[in-house]
Amino acid sequence: MATAGLADNPTEEESMVTAKDVAELLATHPGPSEVDRETLARCIAECFDCARSCTACADADLAEEEVAEMRRCIRLCLDCADICDAAGRVVSRQTHFEPETSRAQVESCRRSCSACAEECERHARHHEHCRICADTCRRCEEACASLLDAIG
Amino acid sequence: MATAGLADNPTEEESMVTAKDVAELLATHPGPSEVDRETLARCIAECFDCARSCTACADADLAEEEVAEMRRCIRLCLDCADICDAAGRVVSRQTHFEPETSRAQVESCRRSCSACAEECERHARHHEHCRICADTCRRCEEACASLLDAIG
Amino acid sequence: MATAGLADNPTEEESMVTAKDVAELLATHPGPSEVDRETLARCIAECFDCARSCTACADADLAEEEVAEMRRCIRLCLDCADICDAAGRVVSRQTHFEPETSRAQVESCRRSCSACAEECERHARHHEHCRICADTCRRCEEACASLLDAIG
Amino acid sequence: MATAGLADNPTEEESMVTAKDVAELLATHPGPSEVDRETLARCIAECFDCARSCTACADADLAEEEVAEMRRCIRLCLDCADICDAAGRVVSRQTHFEPETSRAQVESCRRSCSACAEECERHARHHEHCRICADTCRRCEEACASLLDAIG
Repeated sequence: MATAGLADNPTEEESMVTAKDVAELLATHPGPSEVDRETLARCIAECFDCARSCTACADADLAEEEVAEMRRCIRLCLDCADICDAAGRVVSRQTHFEPETSRAQVESCRRSCSACAEECERHARHHEHCRICADTCRRCEEACASLLDAIG
Repeated sequence: MATAGLADNPTEEESMVTAKDVAELLATHPGPSEVDRETLARCIAECFDCARSCTACADADLAEEEVAEMRRCIRLCLDCADICDAAGRVVSRQTHFEPETSRAQVESCRRSCSACAEECERHARHHEHCRICADTCRRCEEACASLLDAIG
Repeated sequence: MATAGLADNPTEEESMVTAKDVAELLATHPGPSEVDRETLARCIAECFDCARSCTACADADLAEEEVAEMRRCIRLCLDCADICDAAGRVVSRQTHFEPETSRAQVESCRRSCSACAEECERHARHHEHCRICADTCRRCEEACASLLDAIG
Repeated sequence: MATAGLADNPTEEESMVTAKDVAELLATHPGPSEVDRETLARCIAECFDCARSCTACADADLAEEEVAEMRRCIRLCLDCADICDAAGRVVSRQTHFEPETSRAQVESCRRSCSACAEECERHARHHEHCRICADTCRRCEEACASLLDAIG
């Protein structure tokens, strides 16, 4: 029961359960890349989670009364959703794994998550969706950094 | 420990944990739609999971020795990833929720998951990634059907 | 010089030139579907154009002073970009062409374009980007309807 | 009739007509970024064209008799389609334009287009779709390099 101790932080629990699931699917690939599987699985899981979270946060921002003050947050969330989505797809592919192109997209994702987290953190006290989204972006940023180390 | 009893089926466990997490984020929206939140959260979670699973399955198919026999599976997995991704994004948006357009995209997603599951099931005995992907598609198909009922 | 007479309507000119180019690429496929090539090419071209136009219109809406009144337009443009993108990808695939799944996604695209065009048309007198985007959506709606007829 | 002289190279003609159209839409933005509009428009147009071309080329590769030898081409085309799509969306957004995140995604796109072009060029003599796709990737690579210069 590896997930038991994390009851207080459901999004982190979810993230770990998802990564375990992604690792299981990666293990079935007939010709996997040499990248460390756990690190890869965590990055894939975080990229898709972050795409989902940023899509929802951009939409919640749009419904806020002071939408005019949320413009930058909306813009960065939309970018981050698109960039995470592409990164998640690229690193999911193990056939003829390409360190060069994967690295550049994961680096783009790391930067986008960092920028989006920073903006969401500015609104985290007023908007709970921004607090949750900032946490998700920070986890994805870390997972991308770890994968960049693993790709070398 | 709501997830404890599901240890035998990690992908379903993951799906439930993710849906709980998505529901939590939906609950922070300043003007949510009237669609039942649990049903919506489950569909969002399944759409993103299925996009991820189909992307990985298409790539694993491509690395199989008998790739020529996996062409239809690859094609349907690529379609399903794209359609699930669009459906997951559309139903994540609660601001000015549009039953008409949401329904059509969720319906397209339900059909695509059904077609992709059927093809993956044909290869499930030989390829574990197809077995896992078929399960994910079937869960997404069900989640879409439930959401279609809830939208009305 | 088939494009010469269309100088007054550059977006329609562009659309025709793009469709010709897409048809040329489709003609190189080793096992094309039986769907009429010109109709298919036009739909592919319009889907990608519409995804591009809706992405730009949502962003321009967001920068408008009265952004609060543009919320529905932003939401529908974001949906339409995602749905058109998925439709454009699905119908681009000729290998093991699937009438069932293609039809459902093209139908979703047709509806989304119609809803988005209707909303953009409401703002067309005040915002030139909405006028252009409405035109693009209407063209994509028509191209989807034609493709649905052709698929049968 | 700026397009008249290009009849021999329809894809380049299309690209120029599309860029003109994108520039027209960008000009309607209420608060555009300071990036040179023509350079930006060209990059947006090329990113969406390249996403379309790579999606079609991956699918045509899949239908080739010697599909086993096309695996790397399929993989790189799928990556390139996803990365170009994200880049095209990100640089289409002018509201609170972010040089940092845009630059990283355009850089990723430039590299992906270069890798994909190189692989497609290896098959260009045997597969016309690879020849066309390689040309499109090279144009997108150049447009990304120009935009990177313009962003500074």
